[in-house]
Amino acid sequence: MPSLTIRRLDVASPVPADIDIANSVEPLPIVDIAAELGLGPEHYDLYGKYKAKVLLSVLDDLKAQQDGYYVVVGGITPTPLGEGKSTTTVGLCQALGAFLDKKVVTCLRQPSQGPTFGIKGGAAGGGYSQVIPMDEFNLHLTGDIHAITAANNLLAAAIDTRIFHENSQSDKALFNRLCPANKEGKRRFANVMLKRLTKLGISKTDPNELTPDEVRRFARLDIDPESITWRRVMDVNDRFLRKITIGQGPEEKGMVRETGFDISVASEIMAVLALTTSLADMRERLGRMVIGNSKSGEPITADDLGVGGALTVLMKDAIHPTLMQTLEGTPVLVHAGPFANIAHGNSSIVADKIALKLVGKGGFVVTEAGFGADIGTEKFMDIKCRYSGLVPQCAIIVATIRALKMHGGGPDVVAGKPLDHAYVSENVALVEAGCINLAKHIANTRSYGVNVVVAINKFASDTEAEMNAVRNASMVAGAFDAVVCTHHAHGGKGAVELGLAVQRACESQSEPLKFLYPLESSIKEKIESIAKFYGASGVEYSEQAEKQIEMYTKQGFSNLPICMAKTQYSFSHVPSMKGAPTGFVLPIRDVRASIGAGFIYPLVGTMSTMPGLPTRPCFYEIDVDTATGKVMGLS
Amino acid sequence: MPSLTIRRLDVASPVPADIDIANSVEPLPIVDIAAELGLGPEHYDLYGKYKAKVLLSVLDDLKAQQDGYYVVVGGITPTPLGEGKSTTTVGLCQALGAFLDKKVVTCLRQPSQGPTFGIKGGAAGGGYSQVIPMDEFNLHLTGDIHAITAANNLLAAAIDTRIFHENSQSDKALFNRLCPANKEGKRRFANVMLKRLTKLGISKTDPNELTPDEVRRFARLDIDPESITWRRVMDVNDRFLRKITIGQGPEEKGMVRETGFDISVASEIMAVLALTTSLADMRERLGRMVIGNSKSGEPITADDLGVGGALTVLMKDAIHPTLMQTLEGTPVLVHAGPFANIAHGNSSIVADKIALKLVGKGGFVVTEAGFGADIGTEKFMDIKCRYSGLVPQCAIIVATIRALKMHGGGPDVVAGKPLDHAYVSENVALVEAGCINLAKHIANTRSYGVNVVVAINKFASDTEAEMNAVRNASMVAGAFDAVVCTHHAHGGKGAVELGLAVQRACESQSEPLKFLYPLESSIKEKIESIAKFYGASGVEYSEQAEKQIEMYTKQGFSNLPICMAKTQYSFSHVPSMKGAPTGFVLPIRDVRASIGAGFIYPLVGTMSTMPGLPTRPCFYEIDVDTATGKVMGLS
Repeated sequence: MPSLTIRRLDVASPVPADIDIANSVEPLPIVDIAAELGLGPEHYDLYGKYKAKVLLSVLDDLKAQQDGYYVVVGGITPTPLGEGKSTTTVGLCQALGAFLDKKVVTCLRQPSQGPTFGIKGGAAGGGYSQVIPMDEFNLHLTGDIHAITAANNLLAAAIDTRIFHENSQSDKALFNRLCPANKEGKRRFANVMLKRLTKLGISKTDPNELTPDEVRRFARLDIDPESITWRRVMDVNDRFLRKITIGQGPEEKGMVRETGFDISVASEIMAVLALTTSLADMRERLGRMVIGNSKSGEPITADDLGVGGALTVLMKDAIHPTLMQTLEGTPVLVHAGPFANIAHGNSSIVADKIALKLVGKGGFVVTEAGFGADIGTEKFMDIKCRYSGLVPQCAIIVATIRALKMHGGGPDVVAGKPLDHAYVSENVALVEAGCINLAKHIANTRSYGVNVVVAINKFASDTEAEMNAVRNASMVAGAFDAVVCTHHAHGGKGAVELGLAVQRACESQSEPLKFLYPLESSIKEKIESIAKFYGASGVEYSEQAEKQIEMYTKQGFSNLPICMAKTQYSFSHVPSMKGAPTGFVLPIRDVRASIGAGFIYPLVGTMSTMPGLPTRPCFYEIDVDTATGKVMGLS
Repeated sequence: MPSLTIRRLDVASPVPADIDIANSVEPLPIVDIAAELGLGPEHYDLYGKYKAKVLLSVLDDLKAQQDGYYVVVGGITPTPLGEGKSTTTVGLCQALGAFLDKKVVTCLRQPSQGPTFGIKGGAAGGGYSQVIPMDEFNLHLTGDIHAITAANNLLAAAIDTRIFHENSQSDKALFNRLCPANKEGKRRFANVMLKRLTKLGISKTDPNELTPDEVRRFARLDIDPESITWRRVMDVNDRFLRKITIGQGPEEKGMVRETGFDISVASEIMAVLALTTSLADMRERLGRMVIGNSKSGEPITADDLGVGGALTVLMKDAIHPTLMQTLEGTPVLVHAGPFANIAHGNSSIVADKIALKLVGKGGFVVTEAGFGADIGTEKFMDIKCRYSGLVPQCAIIVATIRALKMHGGGPDVVAGKPLDHAYVSENVALVEAGCINLAKHIANTRSYGVNVVVAINKFASDTEAEMNAVRNASMVAGAFDAVVCTHHAHGGKGAVELGLAVQRACESQSEPLKFLYPLESSIKEKIESIAKFYGASGVEYSEQAEKQIEMYTKQGFSNLPICMAKTQYSFSHVPSMKGAPTGFVLPIRDVRASIGAGFIYPLVGTMSTMPGLPTRPCFYEIDVDTATGKVMGLS
C-alpha cells in the first residue's frame, strides 16, 4: 500500500509509557485510512473522527475480488505477563504496510472494558506497536459489547419473567395473553411463534384452531429452573455478582433462584458475533441459543421465548467491524472478543472476510488467536476456519526468551513481582530446555498443513546466543522460519524481517487445511483427539460430564466442534506443568454447550468468568484532563 | 430557518402506524442538518449518517451569540395513556421550523431502552410528529445510557470490593497496597487520594509521613454496609433483580449483602449528566456522589473510593448531546433522560444551552419536562433552571379532552383496555368539570412569572364545543393563550397556530423568574412549599424521613433543591385523587439524596425503579428484515 499518509515514528529509548506514545501521535482521519483501502462513504459509518464501522455490505461489492494471504498469530504457552502476541500482530502489520509496501489489515479482538479498570489495563498492543486512539480502543469503542450486554440481559429477563407468568396462569389464560385478539377481534401468531409451532410439529397458523393440548404445548415452555445455563452479564469486574440470589422482592412471590453474572465477553452472544457470517445467519444463531431445558428435557431456545428477533435488533449495528489504525497509519479492524477459554477467543469471521477482500491478491490479513497456540490456534483452525471456510497460509508462533526459560525450569513468574535474576541474564541452557514447549506448538500447528513462522519477541536483556538457540530449535521442529523482532522498541521497522519471512511462508504454502477431527465423530472422540494433541495419555469424565454428553447427543448436538475450556498456562490442565508434559490424564469436569454460537465446551478445571478488582485498581490513576479532554493514566 | 431541505409531509388518513410513517421518510444526512445550524465538521462527531454528537466546545465558539427564546413543555395530570407531550413538543418545532421560518431546536430526553421491549414501546413522538430514524432514537443512540450503566456499576463493584479488602487487611497492609512503592522504592499518592486527604484535614503529600492514625483514617473507609444507597443498574426490564443477595460465591467469604438493580435511567449518574454544565463540573459532581456512610456517619463519596476520574472517563463522550431530526427535517438534540420521579425528569442543561446559542436571537428552543407540570415543570424551574441560570419565556401545558374528562369524573382509563364511551362522545360538562386540573397547573406555572400557553392536543373524537370549553377555562385561569393543535395527524402544519401563540408569548414575556422556594430554607420548609403548591394542607414525616432529614442537615446538604418522588397521576400522593384535590396531608415516607446531581429527594409513597415484562412483551413483534436491515415491529 504505497501511501502518502504513512507516518515515520520517531522512536525514543528507553521506550516511554504506552499512553505517552499513543498520545504523542496524531491519528489520521479514519476517512483517509478508509480511502486507502478503497472504501467510499457508502461503505462505512463514522463513529467520531478516528473510528468507522465498515458495513457488511462491502462483501457484496467486493465479491469479484480475490482474497489476500491469511496469517494467524498464536503463541507459546505464556507466562502471566503475556508474551506480546497483540504487540507482534500490530508490529508485523506496521512492517508489512509502512515498510514493505504491502496492502495489509490487522484483525484484532475488542478488549473487555472491565479489566481496563482492574489489574490488566488496556489491550491495544504496546510500545511502538499500538492501535490508536488507545483510549477509544479500550473503552466503549463503537458500543458492540454494550449491545451484547443489553441483548444477553434481555434474554435473561425474558426467562425469569416467563417462568413467573407461567406459574400464575392457566394454559388458556397464558395462550390468550400470548395471542391476544386485536381491535377487530382477530388473533394471529407473531412470526417468531411460527418457529415454535414448527418445532412442535404443529402446522396450524390460526390460533383459534389449536386443540387444548396444542395450546398447552405451545404456551407452556415449562422451563426447569435447575437446568438454566443462561447467566446475566456485565462489562465490569464485579466479583460480588459471581453467585447471587434473585427474585427476593415481594412482587416476585417467593420465586427466588440462585444464579450469577459473567463478564460480558463471556456471553454466548459474543461468540455468536465472532462466528456469524451474515445478518441472516446471526438472526438464526441468536434464535437457536439454548438457555436450558424444559422439565421433560427438551432444549428451550431464545426463539421459544419469542426474543430472537429483538436480540438481533439490538445486535444489528454490532455486526459491522470497526476500522481503526496503528501508530504507523496502517488499517485495523477491531471486532468481537469472545472469552478465550469458555469460548473460542478469536476475533470475528466477518472482519477477516472483509479484510481479505480489501487487501486483495498479494495483500495480507493478520489476525490474532487468544492464549497459547494449543488453545487459540487450535480453536482458530477447528472452529473459526471450519465455520468461515477460510484457509490460512501462515501461522505465527510468538515466543519470548522469558517464557522459554520458564518452560526450561526457571522459577515462577508472578505478575506484579520483580523478575528472578534467571530472566534478565544469559542462560542458554535454560532457553534450550524450554524450547520443548515451542517445538510442541510448532509441530501441533504444522499438523494443520500450514507454514509456521516463529517470531522471537526480543526484550532488552535477551542475548544473541539465547536467540540463536531458539532459531535452531524452531527449524529443527519444522518451522518455516524463525525471526527476531523488535517492534516494541522500533515499531514496524523492528518487524521487517518477520514481514519478509511471513511473505515467503505465504507464497510457498501449498498444502490444504487439515482439521484435527471430523465433525461427525462423537463428542468423546473429538475431546480425545484434542487431549492427544495436548499430550495427554487419556481423558477422564466426571459423572456430570457423562450426563451432559449423553444429553447433548440425545438432543442432536453431537456434530458440533469442541471448544476446550482449559488453562492457558500449560498444555495440560495443571498450570504448573510447564514445557511439553505427556502422560497426564485430562479430567473433564463438566460439559456445556453454546448451541447458537455452535460449539460444545468441556470444562477442564474451574474457569472464572467474572474477574475481581484488586485493593488498588487501575482506576486510581485514570482521569480526564478537563482542560483538554484527554484521558490520563490508562495503561 | 428558510431552508432548502425542509420536507413537506404527504399525510394519510387514518394516520398509519408510527413505524410506518417513520420508515416512509428518508432522513436527511445529519451533516446537512448540522450545516443549517451553522455547525462545521469541527463542531461534531458523526455516529453513522443520521446522528452526530455536538461537541460541548461549540459553547466557546458561540459565546458572543445571544440566546434564543426558551420554551418548556409540561402537561396536565395525565391518564396512563399519556397526553402527547413529546408529540406536541416535536409537532410545535416542525411548525416553527418548517412553516414559520424560525430557527428552532427541539430538546428531548433519551428514552430508556428497557421499556422499548416491554410494554411501552418507543418514545420518539408519534403520528406525523416524530424524531427519525425512530429505531436509532429508541435503541443504543450514541451509547450514553450504556456509558451510564458501565460507570454506575464500576462504582458499585468498587464499593463491595473495598469493603471486602478492608475486612481482610490491617491498616498498614491496606495502606501499602493503596500506595505501593514503585521500582525505585518511591511511593506517592494518586491525585484522587489528595482529595480524600484534604477532606480528612491532612495536608501531607508524602505517604511516608502519615502517622499510624492518619494511615488508618485515610485507608479505612469503614463503610457501613447497611447505609449503602448505591444500587447497580441495567437498561433492561428485569423485575427479578429488584431485590437480590450478592456475594454468595465461596471466594467472597460469606460477605453477603442484600441489594438490587434499578433501570439505568434511575442512576444518579444520569441525573448528573442532565444537570452538569461542563466537563470539569461533571468531574466534580461524579466525584462527590455519596454512596453511603462510614460507620461513624461520615458520607463516603466516589472520590473517597478513588473512582471519580474513571467514572468521568467513561462519561466523557456522553456529555455531548446527540443531533437528530424531525420528520420535517428540523433539528433535535437528544440528551439525558433522568427518571421523572426519583430524579428531575428533564433533558440536559448542556443541550439546552447549546441549542439556545445555535438558534440565536429570535429563534426557539423547545424542551420537554417529564410527567405533569406539578412534577416536570416544577423541577424544570426549581432544579434545572436554578443550576443552568437559564430563564424560560413560555411554558406550554399540553391537555387532552380525554384526560380532562377523567379529571371531571369520567371512568378509569386503563392502558390496554378499550376506552369508555364517555371518552369518545361529546360531554362538555365533564370537560368543564375536569378543567379544574388544568386551571391549577396554569396557576402554578404562572406563579414562576412565565407566560403559559395551553396546547389542546386534538383527537379525532373531540368536538368543537369541548375544545371551546377548554379554551375558555384556560383564559380564565390566566393562560396567555390556548390553542387546538393537530400535529399528530398533520405534522407541523397542525401546530402552526400553537407556534404563533408561543411566539407572541415569548415576545411579550417580561417578568423575572420566581423560584418556588429559596435554597437557604430548611429541607422541611422546602418540602412544605412544594406540598402547598400541590394543594396539600400539610406534610407528615415518617420516623425514617425525620432521621434522614436530620442526617443530611448535619452532613451539610440542606441547601440543595428538593426533587419530590411522587405519583404523576394526581397532584396528591393518591393516584385516584383526580382534578385538583385540596386538604390532603402529604406523607413523606423516606428522604434520600443525590449529592452529586445536587438534590434531596423525598419519597412520597413507593416508586418502582425497575419495571417488569408482561406475559407478551413488545419483543415478540420486533425483528430485523435481514434482506434490508430494517427494524420491524417497533411501536
